[in-house]
Amino acid sequence: MTLLRMIFVVVSIAWLMGCGVRKHSGVSLVVQTDFGEKDGAVAAMKGVAKEVDATLDIVDLTHEIPAFNIWEAGYRLSQVVPYWPANTVFVSVVDPGVGTSRRSIVVRTKKDHYIVTPDNGTITLLAALEGIGEVREIDERVNRRPGSDSSFTFHGRDVYMYTAARLASGKIRFDQLGPVLKSGLQTISYQAPVLDENGLTGNIPVLDPQYGNVWTNIPDSFVRRAGIRNGDSVLVNISYRDSVVYSGKLAFVNTFGDVANGQPLAYLNSLMNFSLAINMGNFADQFRVLSGPDWTIHIEK
Amino acid sequence: MTLLRMIFVVVSIAWLMGCGVRKHSGVSLVVQTDFGEKDGAVAAMKGVAKEVDATLDIVDLTHEIPAFNIWEAGYRLSQVVPYWPANTVFVSVVDPGVGTSRRSIVVRTKKDHYIVTPDNGTITLLAALEGIGEVREIDERVNRRPGSDSSFTFHGRDVYMYTAARLASGKIRFDQLGPVLKSGLQTISYQAPVLDENGLTGNIPVLDPQYGNVWTNIPDSFVRRAGIRNGDSVLVNISYRDSVVYSGKLAFVNTFGDVANGQPLAYLNSLMNFSLAINMGNFADQFRVLSGPDWTIHIEK
Amino acid sequence: MTLLRMIFVVVSIAWLMGCGVRKHSGVSLVVQTDFGEKDGAVAAMKGVAKEVDATLDIVDLTHEIPAFNIWEAGYRLSQVVPYWPANTVFVSVVDPGVGTSRRSIVVRTKKDHYIVTPDNGTITLLAALEGIGEVREIDERVNRRPGSDSSFTFHGRDVYMYTAARLASGKIRFDQLGPVLKSGLQTISYQAPVLDENGLTGNIPVLDPQYGNVWTNIPDSFVRRAGIRNGDSVLVNISYRDSVVYSGKLAFVNTFGDVANGQPLAYLNSLMNFSLAINMGNFADQFRVLSGPDWTIHIEK
Repeated sequence: MTLLRMIFVVVSIAWLMGCGVRKHSGVSLVVQTDFGEKDGAVAAMKGVAKEVDATLDIVDLTHEIPAFNIWEAGYRLSQVVPYWPANTVFVSVVDPGVGTSRRSIVVRTKKDHYIVTPDNGTITLLAALEGIGEVREIDERVNRRPGSDSSFTFHGRDVYMYTAARLASGKIRFDQLGPVLKSGLQTISYQAPVLDENGLTGNIPVLDPQYGNVWTNIPDSFVRRAGIRNGDSVLVNISYRDSVVYSGKLAFVNTFGDVANGQPLAYLNSLMNFSLAINMGNFADQFRVLSGPDWTIHIEK
Repeated sequence: MTLLRMIFVVVSIAWLMGCGVRKHSGVSLVVQTDFGEKDGAVAAMKGVAKEVDATLDIVDLTHEIPAFNIWEAGYRLSQVVPYWPANTVFVSVVDPGVGTSRRSIVVRTKKDHYIVTPDNGTITLLAALEGIGEVREIDERVNRRPGSDSSFTFHGRDVYMYTAARLASGKIRFDQLGPVLKSGLQTISYQAPVLDENGLTGNIPVLDPQYGNVWTNIPDSFVRRAGIRNGDSVLVNISYRDSVVYSGKLAFVNTFGDVANGQPLAYLNSLMNFSLAINMGNFADQFRVLSGPDWTIHIEK
Repeated sequence: MTLLRMIFVVVSIAWLMGCGVRKHSGVSLVVQTDFGEKDGAVAAMKGVAKEVDATLDIVDLTHEIPAFNIWEAGYRLSQVVPYWPANTVFVSVVDPGVGTSRRSIVVRTKKDHYIVTPDNGTITLLAALEGIGEVREIDERVNRRPGSDSSFTFHGRDVYMYTAARLASGKIRFDQLGPVLKSGLQTISYQAPVLDENGLTGNIPVLDPQYGNVWTNIPDSFVRRAGIRNGDSVLVNISYRDSVVYSGKLAFVNTFGDVANGQPLAYLNSLMNFSLAINMGNFADQFRVLSGPDWTIHIEK
């Protein structure tokens, strides 16, 4: 009977250890950079993460953020993070200030998503969307890849990925990362959507680069409150600073195929924001529209 | 003894639950789109799949299908699917008709591969290769991401990926997806390979874009039956509609290095189809050959 | 009691089988090619690996190696491999000689990393970095995908990926792959870094393509021994063969932000090698510097 019990205990402990491994395999580590995929930088980062925990599930968000474009990095987070399970850990390395004194942070949103990033405004749009739960400043003396003290230019690998992997694998808790950041979180100013007697005004945060669709930050709730219904004609003006770039009347419809090929249209994109497209065409190219904080859109019914 | 039995039962149940998790980790979900990798669309889709089952193994086929190019999407499936284990679930989102009344389907091939796709002809070439086992029309009222009813333009995320993830993880069975599609499956017409007294005639379905090799749909069995042997000279004519684009004599060899650098050659590609290349060069660029249903190739010994 | 023991045995065996599956899930298979990501070649390779072991963790190094560029393939390995855990299996398929008599090998480095590759010099730089433990020549009669005997042009799928997957999953041991390669390993000659009375001389093995930074093969230890300290001015000459392409004086600093926007700088890159950049700019584009064995850099304090 003693032998039997011993076998029991051994099997049970071993099984529980197995459980431990499995338990963490459910938390993904999602990675975004402006490194591109032509060299080995991203793969070296992933190696560091696998050294922390070989069973980690690592997924790419994108590595094609234009170099140093913090604004677009922030937009991509806002487009992707809300669709992932709670407790997912995201790393965003778009870091013009690498090696300077800019802080490194981990943000827990109110939806319990974790974002590891330099404190340079990348978090702006996601913070507006999900709300900030708590922000911790990474203590880089403790939270960096062993042996990396003399490397100043690849914090993405040595600090961010290493820390994110330890967080995702449960090897460190959020409250062990460093002190709470109580104030001073960096943000980027941008024009919020407005509805007044003149109609809707908003910003063009980003293009849909594959199809040339123009996305705005004006949500469907504003569109409805402006009285714009499916099938309505809308008058759209797009300006870059003070210059009008596009002015036109187009149909607000459900989807691309609701107008003829080559015709422009307005619609709600997959984030349920007011957007512009040409059915089977490229609106941004045809009308030379770009995106960023200097681009404004005005809509009247 | 009762305690012992209880421990047994607990350990056994727990282990079996563990098994359940592991069992599904063996089925991969393979994703193809025309979204590119510059924005967050694909990563949002993957989040939806991980929300369904955090342990799912998700692999990219490609996201660089030219926008709206259903033919090429179908070709990529035929190039990749046969090499994957039975029961693998594929999602292909190349969907010019998104938001219109085109049907959404899941195809089970005779080799037990599952393909989740809009019913727009994407399945054509794979159907010819593996045969159709059964087709189910997705009942989109039931099979869509909870809360996505008002999103019309991102079925790739809300219907296809969500449904594929549930199928791959075993949360839904194939026969629960919706009714059997008995007829009317959309297909694209293309010229099948022909061998007659004038030689071999076929189509150029696709180029090998990295190297500029020209691939045809003429299989090695036709080449052998035409009496073409390794080392033979063959006369090749390539036409776009009625215009001859290339005409030349070249050696049919095993591999690129069998001719001098810069020389054209004919060979069997990795799918065992008749193909054209230039050793260390780019045949398609040099002779301005493209691919698609309008391109014909004729071969004589 | 007999029943109890039986249950024991069954549960234990089942658990151990489960363990077996989990055990291998810790070894990743890292893949590099020059195939690009636009077609299905890489995805077909991954299918072959999953057919060998559905639980394999497969990670991309890059598929954007310029076509046939063995030198750059070797550089990427040297950039990435050292950051991965011991026993990781790498596959590199940059193979201008596919289908000819070039040998196929698996290299075990002294750090216990495994690299499956054609024997064409790809291993050169990693061998210098980690040292060679043992090299085995793959016996392709045994180690190839069943049914692939008549395919001559896709050894990446049929030999390399198949063999790497079997090695990573433990289905074959290193010593079962084929005979030990005792001599004749192919290598590429390149100029090693030199420190003499005239200063430092070295090679530009590669650019950092995303930012246009120029990387050399001169390590920080040489820089220190040359007496170059943080904040020093250094005189840099870059030549292509016998022509001077760039000549200038610049500051050796910790990181990009230590000089003004638009200013050139010298720094240690993330591999701790002497490198050149322009803060928020593109050094390689601006001064038309490329990389490869014909490029030389000379540095004086």
